[in-house]
Amino acid sequence: MPRHRKTRSRKIGLPAGTLMHIGEVKTPRTALTLFRYDAEQLAEQSADTLAGLDTGLPQTGVLWMNIHGLHDTAMMAEIGRAFKLHPLVLEDILHTDQRPKLDSYPDYLFLVTRFFSYDPDTMVISSEQVSIVLGHNFVLTFQERPTGSFDPIRERLRSNRGMLRTAGSDHLAYALLDVIVDRYFIVLEQVGDDCDVLEEELLRKPGTAMLQGIHKLKREIMELRRAVWPLREVINSLIRNDHQFFQHDTVLYLRDVYDHTVHFIESLEAIRDLLAGMLDIYLSSISNRVNMEVRALTVVAMLFMPATLIAGIFGMNFKIMPWLADPNGFWFALGLMAGIASVMGLIFWRRQWLSRR
Amino acid sequence: MPRHRKTRSRKIGLPAGTLMHIGEVKTPRTALTLFRYDAEQLAEQSADTLAGLDTGLPQTGVLWMNIHGLHDTAMMAEIGRAFKLHPLVLEDILHTDQRPKLDSYPDYLFLVTRFFSYDPDTMVISSEQVSIVLGHNFVLTFQERPTGSFDPIRERLRSNRGMLRTAGSDHLAYALLDVIVDRYFIVLEQVGDDCDVLEEELLRKPGTAMLQGIHKLKREIMELRRAVWPLREVINSLIRNDHQFFQHDTVLYLRDVYDHTVHFIESLEAIRDLLAGMLDIYLSSISNRVNMEVRALTVVAMLFMPATLIAGIFGMNFKIMPWLADPNGFWFALGLMAGIASVMGLIFWRRQWLSRR
Amino acid sequence: MPRHRKTRSRKIGLPAGTLMHIGEVKTPRTALTLFRYDAEQLAEQSADTLAGLDTGLPQTGVLWMNIHGLHDTAMMAEIGRAFKLHPLVLEDILHTDQRPKLDSYPDYLFLVTRFFSYDPDTMVISSEQVSIVLGHNFVLTFQERPTGSFDPIRERLRSNRGMLRTAGSDHLAYALLDVIVDRYFIVLEQVGDDCDVLEEELLRKPGTAMLQGIHKLKREIMELRRAVWPLREVINSLIRNDHQFFQHDTVLYLRDVYDHTVHFIESLEAIRDLLAGMLDIYLSSISNRVNMEVRALTVVAMLFMPATLIAGIFGMNFKIMPWLADPNGFWFALGLMAGIASVMGLIFWRRQWLSRR
Amino acid sequence: MPRHRKTRSRKIGLPAGTLMHIGEVKTPRTALTLFRYDAEQLAEQSADTLAGLDTGLPQTGVLWMNIHGLHDTAMMAEIGRAFKLHPLVLEDILHTDQRPKLDSYPDYLFLVTRFFSYDPDTMVISSEQVSIVLGHNFVLTFQERPTGSFDPIRERLRSNRGMLRTAGSDHLAYALLDVIVDRYFIVLEQVGDDCDVLEEELLRKPGTAMLQGIHKLKREIMELRRAVWPLREVINSLIRNDHQFFQHDTVLYLRDVYDHTVHFIESLEAIRDLLAGMLDIYLSSISNRVNMEVRALTVVAMLFMPATLIAGIFGMNFKIMPWLADPNGFWFALGLMAGIASVMGLIFWRRQWLSRR
Amino acid sequence: MPRHRKTRSRKIGLPAGTLMHIGEVKTPRTALTLFRYDAEQLAEQSADTLAGLDTGLPQTGVLWMNIHGLHDTAMMAEIGRAFKLHPLVLEDILHTDQRPKLDSYPDYLFLVTRFFSYDPDTMVISSEQVSIVLGHNFVLTFQERPTGSFDPIRERLRSNRGMLRTAGSDHLAYALLDVIVDRYFIVLEQVGDDCDVLEEELLRKPGTAMLQGIHKLKREIMELRRAVWPLREVINSLIRNDHQFFQHDTVLYLRDVYDHTVHFIESLEAIRDLLAGMLDIYLSSISNRVNMEVRALTVVAMLFMPATLIAGIFGMNFKIMPWLADPNGFWFALGLMAGIASVMGLIFWRRQWLSRR
Repeated sequence: MPRHRKTRSRKIGLPAGTLMHIGEVKTPRTALTLFRYDAEQLAEQSADTLAGLDTGLPQTGVLWMNIHGLHDTAMMAEIGRAFKLHPLVLEDILHTDQRPKLDSYPDYLFLVTRFFSYDPDTMVISSEQVSIVLGHNFVLTFQERPTGSFDPIRERLRSNRGMLRTAGSDHLAYALLDVIVDRYFIVLEQVGDDCDVLEEELLRKPGTAMLQGIHKLKREIMELRRAVWPLREVINSLIRNDHQFFQHDTVLYLRDVYDHTVHFIESLEAIRDLLAGMLDIYLSSISNRVNMEVRALTVVAMLFMPATLIAGIFGMNFKIMPWLADPNGFWFALGLMAGIASVMGLIFWRRQWLSRR
Repeated sequence: MPRHRKTRSRKIGLPAGTLMHIGEVKTPRTALTLFRYDAEQLAEQSADTLAGLDTGLPQTGVLWMNIHGLHDTAMMAEIGRAFKLHPLVLEDILHTDQRPKLDSYPDYLFLVTRFFSYDPDTMVISSEQVSIVLGHNFVLTFQERPTGSFDPIRERLRSNRGMLRTAGSDHLAYALLDVIVDRYFIVLEQVGDDCDVLEEELLRKPGTAMLQGIHKLKREIMELRRAVWPLREVINSLIRNDHQFFQHDTVLYLRDVYDHTVHFIESLEAIRDLLAGMLDIYLSSISNRVNMEVRALTVVAMLFMPATLIAGIFGMNFKIMPWLADPNGFWFALGLMAGIASVMGLIFWRRQWLSRR
Repeated sequence: MPRHRKTRSRKIGLPAGTLMHIGEVKTPRTALTLFRYDAEQLAEQSADTLAGLDTGLPQTGVLWMNIHGLHDTAMMAEIGRAFKLHPLVLEDILHTDQRPKLDSYPDYLFLVTRFFSYDPDTMVISSEQVSIVLGHNFVLTFQERPTGSFDPIRERLRSNRGMLRTAGSDHLAYALLDVIVDRYFIVLEQVGDDCDVLEEELLRKPGTAMLQGIHKLKREIMELRRAVWPLREVINSLIRNDHQFFQHDTVLYLRDVYDHTVHFIESLEAIRDLLAGMLDIYLSSISNRVNMEVRALTVVAMLFMPATLIAGIFGMNFKIMPWLADPNGFWFALGLMAGIASVMGLIFWRRQWLSRR
Repeated sequence: MPRHRKTRSRKIGLPAGTLMHIGEVKTPRTALTLFRYDAEQLAEQSADTLAGLDTGLPQTGVLWMNIHGLHDTAMMAEIGRAFKLHPLVLEDILHTDQRPKLDSYPDYLFLVTRFFSYDPDTMVISSEQVSIVLGHNFVLTFQERPTGSFDPIRERLRSNRGMLRTAGSDHLAYALLDVIVDRYFIVLEQVGDDCDVLEEELLRKPGTAMLQGIHKLKREIMELRRAVWPLREVINSLIRNDHQFFQHDTVLYLRDVYDHTVHFIESLEAIRDLLAGMLDIYLSSISNRVNMEVRALTVVAMLFMPATLIAGIFGMNFKIMPWLADPNGFWFALGLMAGIASVMGLIFWRRQWLSRR
Repeated sequence: MPRHRKTRSRKIGLPAGTLMHIGEVKTPRTALTLFRYDAEQLAEQSADTLAGLDTGLPQTGVLWMNIHGLHDTAMMAEIGRAFKLHPLVLEDILHTDQRPKLDSYPDYLFLVTRFFSYDPDTMVISSEQVSIVLGHNFVLTFQERPTGSFDPIRERLRSNRGMLRTAGSDHLAYALLDVIVDRYFIVLEQVGDDCDVLEEELLRKPGTAMLQGIHKLKREIMELRRAVWPLREVINSLIRNDHQFFQHDTVLYLRDVYDHTVHFIESLEAIRDLLAGMLDIYLSSISNRVNMEVRALTVVAMLFMPATLIAGIFGMNFKIMPWLADPNGFWFALGLMAGIASVMGLIFWRRQWLSRR
């Protein structure tokens, strides 16, 4: 992720666990939403500061707190103390250029994942970090800015659809991962569309702009790959479930998310192969065009050279030359020129040298 | 599978297990066929709805139900209830863009495979999903549309040829897989034929259309690969037989199917290498043609330039010039032109510049 | 093996184990040779049919039966019954497009290997399947046609040279594998020679025919690779000797064969790399030639253009022009042309534009 | 590391463990700094020779000795005796062209790592070896020259910030590794910047100098890779902690350093892919330029050839030719030339042949 | 190793263990040197035949016999009997085209390695086989010809430097391997130097000879790789020490040799990458040159065409044409030609078309 490489070096030599927000500030204010639910009831709270929320861990049921906006390091430290998070976890949450990973701690799992969005105008994929902390009875989610991506899950919690309310915190974590992975397919569709448009245009009329388009798409796809390959590993290690945070039934669902990431990766690779093929076509079409233009030059030369020679011949100053005195000599000469050009044109036409192939 | 990437995003945020048919509806009506058999007897039933069929699991022998057409989600849910299928299994059956996979559940194995067919006119490979559920005494097969591919197996069941009737449900599952993998070879033959035609044409007379042909075939072969590599893994894990759904003797037969998939993959790779080699030949033949046309231009220029110069020389207006007054001067000049052109032509001919190499 | 892909599909839907000879019939008649030997004695029999042979397994010593010609499915079935071969083994023997593999059965090991021969005229490698069944006291070998490749082993058995007669059936199997792998080196030498010839020719005078030669050799080498890589795996798994068909001492010898296959594979890869390098040289020599011919055109143009311009200048119809009236004006003009051309020629010569580089 | 390959051969045949400094002498004098600390106190010593320092291993707390300048082999041998280092360890410290590695000995771990610095003017990455010996209560660091990179750690030790003073020698080793890996990101930023500059320049105006720039950057990145890949393995094997030199809590921090190396490697690979893409763009832009210049030639030829032919036609010496006697004939002819050139120019303009694409 | 492939086929069908020297005879006579040593004493013997030497295995200390020249199969068989070597070991010693390998036998280890030497004039790497047999109290080394490479070890034995005399046969084997691997670095330096020379020359003035140079170096490096990769595996498996022929302390030293082979391999890969980069530069410089020459042609055409047209125009035979009667008309015309050419030259110069880029 070349774009992020600038931010790392600011922290050199500081002790690990020093809280410092690394990355762009994407939202001006921090927002916290807290859900407490079990099969029977659901309580919902929103606040700007941690003080306004009851963060005691529930006896039964699940607590889910979502945090938008990460630049307020003081509040992050407070959250860390409230949920007993390791300093390295807080540090990773704040460094928003992490690659997806899974760290296990005795009381919770810490997952880093990424949301992607694609701007079709600039053909640029931007991404932001979503950190998930999964405890036995709580889930914390940290996002750089509000995206509304988790709204369907909130809706399902409120309306008690599906098994989300009855299942534990692990099922909530699964549902969040599912939403994150599903969002990737939206980006994939858009990139794929752009790729198809480019391909069509390329087969129709290749130009230098296309090369840069291909180059750009390739770059974006590499960035997607770099985010999804480790995510696949993360989910795979969740399925192996060495940490015992997932119930057997939820693992079946995780397997489904895993299948989606594999599917996604394969589609990405397909697009990558497609782009490589497009590059081949582009390069060959450039060669082809050189070819066509050399041929055009050849044809022009071949059509004009005999005529020019004939004109030169009749322009010689010999005393005695045929046709010169003939009243129609001029027209004979022109006719000879036209005739030779026509015969040549016919030959070229039959050899398909005049067609654009 | 870029073509399928459009359909995924419709489901974002819905709880897992929500039944929704994803994919093209390929047949207007749903058809169910049910076989009950053991070594002694065979019962056969067909219906449009589940109601008309006796789906009770048999005490002895095997029940095989085949379903054509998957868009009727209500009926699919009914089938799910009748055979106690997990919601995720039903979901995967209905999402017809799955990659081949094997999921094990306590009471059954769930396999996703794909049928391929190749349209030689458009050089497009289309595929459809075939899902197989293998229980201890039943087999369910789900297809997107009737293809008649399983008819030979039905025939063998009816005629009691081979060991199909005496063996258990695992042998039926093997027989179905065998048919599926064997069908791949038909597609392979057709793709291979097209590839050979393209190669021959390429060596005879390369053109830009061929580049697109190569590009297209490469794409199709990539799609086949994406389907067969995971299938190989599926069959391999069936052979390892951790799930104990296969008897020892059937595993020997599965090994045979495994060999076929490996054979198929190698043939695919061979075609892929061939296509890569064809691309090299294509690109080099383009270069060659530029070469040949530059040479043609050179030859033309070399033949005409001296003649044009001679004409120019005798067109100069010097008072005293040789040959001008000579009655045959004009013919001398023409002869000189022709002579030089002939000598040059001879040199070119001996250097094989006039041959097409 | 693209050439074989045509034959597979004929069997679709037939029950596994259905005997059908797939592949070309390479010999019109079937021939069986049977050796019975131990340290003391050797008995040798030949026949056209199984009936004429005593196929009872020996109490002591080893029985080796070799079969040439596989199209007589009835006899093959008979052999299968005589030695209690699994239907799948017979099927694999008859399908002569198998890749090398090792299948273990309780009473015997089943090996599929391939013989290769190279026709230097057509630069085509043809191969045929050699199947070996190794029991505790018998060895069966199945070949598509008589090749005489096993004659040295027969000779060693008859003359009781080496340890072949005293060792068991495993040592015979080793000796057969050794002969098969050694034969690969003959093909390798021939392919390598062709490759060297091609390389020399390429460096001397590259032409389009060479591209097709490289393409063809690459194809053949890919076919060899596809046969030898799995053979390496087969021998490796024989060395691991999980099946206990080999005595400890024979395993030492197998390790030797294994080394040979690895050596063979490395030589193949070396030739492959060589061919890739040759393709680079070929493509670059094409570019070079375009270069040289563009330069020739440039040189011609540069030599003639000034002369033509001078002729044009003195052909203008101005009333007053220098030299026109001078008796030597014409020769001055010609001298000027020759002079400019000479100076240019000198410049080109010093810039080494006239050399062929 | 091609630059180092010259120094190896000087040692051939000498017994292993012979101390000889291999590599450039980067600082004229040797400097030793020694820290002794525990949670309560910190003692700091500096000297030019070992004699002036108390190198007794502490009962409680940690001893950290840093050595700058490695050419004084006598002193190195003395240090080896003082800390009971194996001769091979000393040898590896003195051979400053080692790749990163981890060797375990009963009483200590021996790590070789590298510092990198990038000179943006010459686009050359230089590196130097940092060897770390980690015992249960001591840490030795060996550097080729003073760089000040470990100063922040010294500062943290003095100011007792973070947990460095209270944790053991393993945490100090972690902190050193963390600083080393963090420094890599500075080099990465600089290389990445140069790469971006090159890319921008390339898209604006490609030239041959760029090819050499790409070639150079690629070389430097390969050198970085060669150093970081084994470092990743080193840290990974520290995390596995088979040698029990790290406490459980420090392993969590090492995991963080590991993540950084992985992040670094991915960024490197991204830059590598970028450079490969840039090479493609460069090569295609060269092709494009040939194309454009051939076209320019074609256009010029096409504009001038008809005019030259017309001039030739009216220069013929026929007695009777149209327009010759016409007072405006000359202008008619010029007009005809201009007209044809204009029509052609219009055609070219509409076909966008005059634009620079 | 394509050069060796000719010799293999001579042995087809012979029983394994048949002694036959395969490879070039590189020295006319066989020479044996025998060292017997322990910590206290050293005895040294030289002879042409085995008869003159005392080959009884020592009670204490180590026996080291070195054999130069392998073509005397009778003597080799004698040595085999004296030290109870397996026939396959003797066979492998005599077949001097082996790849490096390690075979373990109950009483000894058998190692095959290779010496390399590089002839800078022909840019050819030649290699010869060095076989080592390591027993508990003896070491045998077999070389194709005397090279003097083991002299430093003999010197160390005589002078009792280092720990060689006190350590066992395993340490001697280590010392021999160390010398062999160290020698590789000499070859690497020479190849690297040639590569640098080639690169410099390439950047200065690319020519077709360079392509062949790159091709040749690539071939040589492939050959080195093929020898060193398996050697790395050999040493790695010695370090794992499953065969218990090495003492714990010697394994530490072997680890050092292992590091050197890894270092060597990485340097080789670096040179390989460099050569690949040089090929890119070469190919692009060829393209560039085409480009430059097309441009030269364009410039020439553009400078001459207008002048030629002007000459043609004033050569027309119109009765009334401007300037014709003007005494300075001729000079006006020439001035016009020169003027247009100058303006064009200026335009080309400003577009940097006249520079060589």
